[in-house]
Amino acid sequence: MAFEIERKFLVIGDAWQQSISDESYIRQAYLTGRDRASIRVRIRDNRTATLTVKSRGADLKRLEFEYEIPVLEAEAMLPLRCGAIIEKRRAIVPFQGHVWEVDTFFGDNVGLVLAEIELNAVGETFARPQWIGAEVTSHASYYNSALANNPFSIWADRDHRSA
Amino acid sequence: MAFEIERKFLVIGDAWQQSISDESYIRQAYLTGRDRASIRVRIRDNRTATLTVKSRGADLKRLEFEYEIPVLEAEAMLPLRCGAIIEKRRAIVPFQGHVWEVDTFFGDNVGLVLAEIELNAVGETFARPQWIGAEVTSHASYYNSALANNPFSIWADRDHRSA
Repeated sequence: MAFEIERKFLVIGDAWQQSISDESYIRQAYLTGRDRASIRVRIRDNRTATLTVKSRGADLKRLEFEYEIPVLEAEAMLPLRCGAIIEKRRAIVPFQGHVWEVDTFFGDNVGLVLAEIELNAVGETFARPQWIGAEVTSHASYYNSALANNPFSIWADRDHRSA
Repeated sequence: MAFEIERKFLVIGDAWQQSISDESYIRQAYLTGRDRASIRVRIRDNRTATLTVKSRGADLKRLEFEYEIPVLEAEAMLPLRCGAIIEKRRAIVPFQGHVWEVDTFFGDNVGLVLAEIELNAVGETFARPQWIGAEVTSHASYYNSALANNPFSIWADRDHRSA
């Protein structure tokens, strides 16, 4: 059990690609629609998988429970999902003592790149790299669970939001 | 991963109580509403807990994935539920080579007693004890997930269904 404090930002340009320390390929889907819990199945690099229960809501602080599960079971759960499978490449980008996760989306969410930083406390300060754009932490449309149902490619105003 | 083949029946009288081989006290809740997956948190005897993902539907055969989780995490997930917490005492009742689970419900479902038998194949035959009443396997209102939202105590026709 853990509280997750995460802030999410749009990404400007591709300078972040010069500082990648690690990368993985993620497929994930949600087993819940509009309930209080968000339940995610995630398969990473086709090698490991997790089942994650998170409290929902625009709170900066979310309750999170994550369990390792066999990849084959995760695959078998995908047909039980709501919405589409989210596919993205996640790059780990260290910057001045913090670690950024930069997600480049594929499929129906192609064109979207988001950066997340995980903090230990709500008020924790952190340095913003130059490639960080507007904060979207509280914008529900950028939740991965929302992107599964309303992908970036069909947003009417996506050109204004891509940086 | 497993397929679960379960049949569910109403219970007549209390003769089954003479053959109980084991008993446990169950609290459980559902993290999903009306989605394709049913996701259950179950706490047994306040000592062990599971998170279970099942495919939904009136099929006799349901896909089921069950994971042991810490009791404290299960307790912390309960507030994320849809509907009420289901409370029941589960009695294990062996009968002629099969094992029946007889659930006596409490709280908002008081008055309801259901017996379930788990089978290895859809067509598997089994002996029916005298205390077994009408089959309700395909009656969605008797799903525990349905009872969490529409408990037995408010059914208009419950007197006709209790045996």
